[in-house]
Amino acid sequence: MKGRIEAALTEALTRMTRTECPPKLAGALHHAVFPGGNRLRPTLCLATAQAIGEQNPTLVDAAATALEMLHCASLVHDDLPAFDDSPLRRGRPSVHVAFGEAVAVLAGDALIIGAFETLALSAAATPALLGPLTRVLARAAGAPFGMCGGQAWESEPGVELARYHRAKTASMFEAATMAGAIAAGHDGEPWRELGRYVGEAYQVADDIKDRIGGEELGKPSGRDDAKDRPSAVRMLGLDAARDLLTRHARRAAESIPACAGREALVARIDGMLRAFN
Amino acid sequence: MKGRIEAALTEALTRMTRTECPPKLAGALHHAVFPGGNRLRPTLCLATAQAIGEQNPTLVDAAATALEMLHCASLVHDDLPAFDDSPLRRGRPSVHVAFGEAVAVLAGDALIIGAFETLALSAAATPALLGPLTRVLARAAGAPFGMCGGQAWESEPGVELARYHRAKTASMFEAATMAGAIAAGHDGEPWRELGRYVGEAYQVADDIKDRIGGEELGKPSGRDDAKDRPSAVRMLGLDAARDLLTRHARRAAESIPACAGREALVARIDGMLRAFN
Repeated sequence: MKGRIEAALTEALTRMTRTECPPKLAGALHHAVFPGGNRLRPTLCLATAQAIGEQNPTLVDAAATALEMLHCASLVHDDLPAFDDSPLRRGRPSVHVAFGEAVAVLAGDALIIGAFETLALSAAATPALLGPLTRVLARAAGAPFGMCGGQAWESEPGVELARYHRAKTASMFEAATMAGAIAAGHDGEPWRELGRYVGEAYQVADDIKDRIGGEELGKPSGRDDAKDRPSAVRMLGLDAARDLLTRHARRAAESIPACAGREALVARIDGMLRAFN
Repeated sequence: MKGRIEAALTEALTRMTRTECPPKLAGALHHAVFPGGNRLRPTLCLATAQAIGEQNPTLVDAAATALEMLHCASLVHDDLPAFDDSPLRRGRPSVHVAFGEAVAVLAGDALIIGAFETLALSAAATPALLGPLTRVLARAAGAPFGMCGGQAWESEPGVELARYHRAKTASMFEAATMAGAIAAGHDGEPWRELGRYVGEAYQVADDIKDRIGGEELGKPSGRDDAKDRPSAVRMLGLDAARDLLTRHARRAAESIPACAGREALVARIDGMLRAFN
C-alpha cells in the first residue's frame, strides 16, 4: 500500500513541478511531500476502500493523494514563524527554513489547489463522485469545521478541547474513511465514525508524545505548554489522557460497518493505533 | 450584475463563518472579501455566460464566486510581510495587520478551499460540469501555470516578463471567461483568448499605475522598482507600455467568438478596459 501511495503522490507532484515551475517552488513542493511521514490519512483512505471492495482505483488513489497533499500543506503553513515557528519537520529543515517564507506560503497554497485538481483530473470516468468527494475534503480542510477552523482556534483566548481537536485533526481522518468509501462507489456517512475515532486517538497520542518527548517525530517536545495550546494531557493529566486514547481505539474498532474485508480492516486499524502509542 | 456577485459572495462567506467559526478567522474572511475591489474576474465570468445565453445560473454564480475567493486569497497572502509587506489594501489595513499573520495565512487557505467547495456545492444539478470547472480554476490558481507559479517567480533571480504576467495575472482572467462559458454549458476553449488579452491589458495597466501613482488603488506606488519586480514599464518604458495596453485591448475585442450577445459583450469589455487606463 505504501508503494501505491508514493507512486500516486509522485505523479501529482510531477504534474505540478514540470519544467515551467519556478525552481524554488518546485523544490519546496517536493520537500513538503517527500520523504513523507507515516502517510496515515491516505493509508486509512485506501484501507477503507479495500475493505469495502475497491471500485475505481484511479479515483481512490486521487482521494488518498489529495488527503496527503492537504495534510502536507497544513504542516508547511503550521511550521511558519507566525505559527509554531518550527525549524525542523521530520528531522529536516522545515520548508520555510529551506526555501524562504514566501515560497513556503505559496507551496502550501499550491498543494491545497493541487489536491482539488488531482480529484478533478481523476474523476473523468466517475463524474458523479467528484462533487461528494470534493465536499468531504473541503469540509475537512477548510472553515469552519476543518483544519483551518481548528488552527484558527489557537489564535483565540479559549476553546473547548473536543471542538478544537475535532476540527484540527479528527476532521481529516473522518474525510479519509469517508473519501475512501465514496471513491469506491459507496455512501461515506457510515464510515465517518471510524475516521473520527482514529483521528481523536491520534490527537490524544500526539498530545501525550508532546508531553513525554517526541524525538521520533523529529520535532521538539513541550510545545503545547510553551504555546499555551489546548491539549488532552494539559487538561486531563497524563493517566486520564491514556485512558481516553484506549477508549477512542475501542470505539474505532466497534464502529467499522459490516463489509467484505471487515476483519482485515479491524486488524489494520488495531496495528495503526498501536503504532500511535 | 454587481448585486448578483455580492449576493453570491455573501452566501459563500456566510456558510464559512457560521457560529462554529473562530471569531478572528470569521472577521478576517469577511475583511478579505468585503468591501471588494472592482470584482473584475467574476464580472468577466458572468458577462461571458450572459453573452453566450446563460444556462445553469446557480453554477455560473458559483464559478464567479470561486474566482473572486481565489483572487482575494492571493491578495491576503501577497500582502504578508514575507511578500509585499503591505500595511494597506483598498485603503484599509490589510488582513494580517488587522487580524495577525497566522489568521491571515489561514484566511487565505480557507478561501482557496472554500472556492472549490462552492463549486462542488453548486454542481449537484450539473455534475458533468464540475470536473472541467475545477480543472480550469485550479490550473489558473496553482502551480506551475497559475498564480502560485507566477508569484513564485518573484523569488527567482530572473524571469521572462510574458511568462510571469501570464501566470500571475492573465491565468485568472483566462479562467474567468472559460469558466463562464463552461458553467453556461459550452466549451471553454474558444473563450480563452478573450480572458488572456483582458488579463494582459490589466497587468500592463497595473504596471503603469504602479509607476505613475496608484492613489485610487489604496496602495503606494513604485513598489515594482522597490521590489525589483518585473514590470512592463520597467522593461519597455512608459510609452511602449501604453502602446502594448492598446494592442491587448484591440486583440481582446477581436477574439470574442460569435454568440447571441457579442455586441453587448464587446461594449462591456471596452468599458472595462477603459476603466483600467
